Amino acid sequence: MRLVIIGGDAAGMSAASQARRVDRGCEVVVLEQTEDVSYGACGLPYKLPDGNDMEDLKIISAERFRRERGIDLRLGHRVERIDPGARRVSGTGAVGPFEEPYDRLLVATGARIARPPIPGLEQLWGDGAYGLKTLEDGRVLKRALARRPRSAVVVGGGYIGLEATDNLREQGLEVTVVEALPHVLPFLPSELRDKIYAEAESRGVKVVLGTAVERVERAGGGLRLQTGAGELEADLVLVATGVRPCSELAAEAGIALGAAGSIAVNEQLETSVPGIYSAGDCADARHALTGRSVWIPLALRANRAGKLAGGNMLGRRDPAPPVLGTAVFKFFDQQVGRTGLTEDEAREEGHDPVAGAINASTRAKYYGGGGKLGVWLLADRKTHRLLGGAMVGPEGAAHRIDTVAACLHAGLTVEELYAMDLGYAPPFGPSWSPLLTCASQLSKKLG
Amino acid sequence: MRLVIIGGDAAGMSAASQARRVDRGCEVVVLEQTEDVSYGACGLPYKLPDGNDMEDLKIISAERFRRERGIDLRLGHRVERIDPGARRVSGTGAVGPFEEPYDRLLVATGARIARPPIPGLEQLWGDGAYGLKTLEDGRVLKRALARRPRSAVVVGGGYIGLEATDNLREQGLEVTVVEALPHVLPFLPSELRDKIYAEAESRGVKVVLGTAVERVERAGGGLRLQTGAGELEADLVLVATGVRPCSELAAEAGIALGAAGSIAVNEQLETSVPGIYSAGDCADARHALTGRSVWIPLALRANRAGKLAGGNMLGRRDPAPPVLGTAVFKFFDQQVGRTGLTEDEAREEGHDPVAGAINASTRAKYYGGGGKLGVWLLADRKTHRLLGGAMVGPEGAAHRIDTVAACLHAGLTVEELYAMDLGYAPPFGPSWSPLLTCASQLSKKLG
Repeated sequence: MRLVIIGGDAAGMSAASQARRVDRGCEVVVLEQTEDVSYGACGLPYKLPDGNDMEDLKIISAERFRRERGIDLRLGHRVERIDPGARRVSGTGAVGPFEEPYDRLLVATGARIARPPIPGLEQLWGDGAYGLKTLEDGRVLKRALARRPRSAVVVGGGYIGLEATDNLREQGLEVTVVEALPHVLPFLPSELRDKIYAEAESRGVKVVLGTAVERVERAGGGLRLQTGAGELEADLVLVATGVRPCSELAAEAGIALGAAGSIAVNEQLETSVPGIYSAGDCADARHALTGRSVWIPLALRANRAGKLAGGNMLGRRDPAPPVLGTAVFKFFDQQVGRTGLTEDEAREEGHDPVAGAINASTRAKYYGGGGKLGVWLLADRKTHRLLGGAMVGPEGAAHRIDTVAACLHAGLTVEELYAMDLGYAPPFGPSWSPLLTCASQLSKKLG
Repeated sequence: MRLVIIGGDAAGMSAASQARRVDRGCEVVVLEQTEDVSYGACGLPYKLPDGNDMEDLKIISAERFRRERGIDLRLGHRVERIDPGARRVSGTGAVGPFEEPYDRLLVATGARIARPPIPGLEQLWGDGAYGLKTLEDGRVLKRALARRPRSAVVVGGGYIGLEATDNLREQGLEVTVVEALPHVLPFLPSELRDKIYAEAESRGVKVVLGTAVERVERAGGGLRLQTGAGELEADLVLVATGVRPCSELAAEAGIALGAAGSIAVNEQLETSVPGIYSAGDCADARHALTGRSVWIPLALRANRAGKLAGGNMLGRRDPAPPVLGTAVFKFFDQQVGRTGLTEDEAREEGHDPVAGAINASTRAKYYGGGGKLGVWLLADRKTHRLLGGAMVGPEGAAHRIDTVAACLHAGLTVEELYAMDLGYAPPFGPSWSPLLTCASQLSKKLG
């Protein structure tokens, strides 16, 4: 059995490793277009400040994959065509064109930065304007920071933009975040978003909302950005307006696409073409609450789907579990967590959603320290079933959100959450967990 | 409607407040034997070190309960008899004997220190030997610490003993913990207990296991303890060998007792005598996994049961939710969390329990900082249903344990936990949550 895997990042290498664990006799060829495999992409923002090394993000070296796991890993191999009829992929590598036959194929091509069509951006890319998706992106941006820019504009107020803001500020830059939508982090309810704005302000970060960047160009020693709200000057621009699935290769081979142009897979992670699987940021997933195809590119999902695909390509029939989009991140001293549906998404699904929100102490008041944890829960008015949750606070949010995720997976109601026996000690929360307090408030609203 | 409540701590005052919320017309009399009401008993250990004030533990003053909530709160009133036939309680107060008729009665007498029968202990109580259960206990011990003792022996390695150890060390005392059982924290599996021993050692705390204190007496300026493992000297002894429910008053009135001598209540928190309710550390509860009567004196349960009893005494029929014994605490830089059944308890319930344990990083390795989180999960071999969990680590344990509690309440299997979409970001954990890694390992053991 010869497996070929396109892409050597989280999903691809998880699949390759798992396939070799399941069957030591199978041949596994990984074709990776860059020179990097298996690195912690989620850590990129944290390696920007001085004293951190981008190369520390490498988890397992190519050499170790080859030697210890028996994986035929080929770097600098760019696949340009999938031929499902001939069960063959072809492309160009460092040593020229190549062709590889396969018995089973995994498309793990990931996602890439969606560069917005801002006039002037293209010319500055890599020299004034940057993205932060791949390890190489990280190296390029870090070299730019070594030239000691004093200011940055971050275009896009999603979590990558905000994580980068945190770390650029740590590096000493003046940072302005420009978001075209009326708000950063559109998945957060307004009560919790206000905490993000307050944190930004207390850190001297300017946030410009509802404002598109219309043009960027060199001016003096730096850059000038024309926006809907006037001109901004900065030494560099970081574009964090989101990513798109790398699904063109699959689409050209006749593989059906799903949500947001990602590669559609069934429960076993097989695409519409038998024998071709897909996993990671290029593929879709099923939402645990709606059953619909969704595209939510997050690390756990990529690792998990890769691992499952590695076994399924060898004949296993392990289903990929559905997702909730549970995500956490840090913005300076605030932890942010979210899971499940937003109010708008719930409404689109035909729910009559009711939200509750509270603000609770992160510790027993007399204990000292800590701060306020904002908790938001969403439920269906008729069934009282929980639909989503979010939290922002200086402690507790990043781990407490998993309790909401567990409730969503289990299909519990607000009242079932409220009845739970959750932990308490003065250093870690009030005796009524903030989650219980929020559930109580929401339960009263539901009547 | 005239409600009488015996006991003015967590359960009693929660009940009184709720009753007044439910019906502004009802008369609520609270009879409290001490001069203190409504304080954060869980915070007692943390107020021992200099720079902390025991009085900060007071949450709501007696005066505010009277003025703002209309509760007839009487301090220094010790109830000595319940007469269910005459619907009357009697006792002695500051101004002499009293009698109070009631329509509904709540027994919220709490728990008290179980003073072990160690020869010599009685004579030293309050002047060399101390307990830490009530606010007054806290004041007495704090006064003793003001005399600058240099060393303490803590008798009992449960969580109160260890929390006190943490804080006595913070105050600069040399501390030796003496535990009669072979181990501290018997609810923890050995993998996790070892982390506690390591933490104690790194903090210069001596832990003596499997050793009973046989005698304590004055010697020189301090105390000498005779133990099964030789003599110990110390300036003070803190007894933390556990508590017992204050159920004598109820028992003498013919009220049936439940687990561990606590007052047995039905789902509405009513005792075997109609019209008499009980809540808090004196009463039993139903275990969520076994359905059995259990006695688990913890703050959330006391607050919740008090609140429910306050409404039920006025005709509501709100059921008290079952408990899991979810508990968290801090021991120096380690967080400890546990929920559900231990291996022994599971076996007694007829399960064939299988445990999994892992040690994971509390952050992405390249992020830096953090440490190791030990996770232990218990499941039934046949059904794969989760039965219990525990965690010890420098971060994450106190809040992640709630996710296990949610799984237990929902009756989920190990595989259902493993399939969950839990949050990840480099500052807060590895991409595979330690809970998922433990579930994966346990699932493999279950086959």
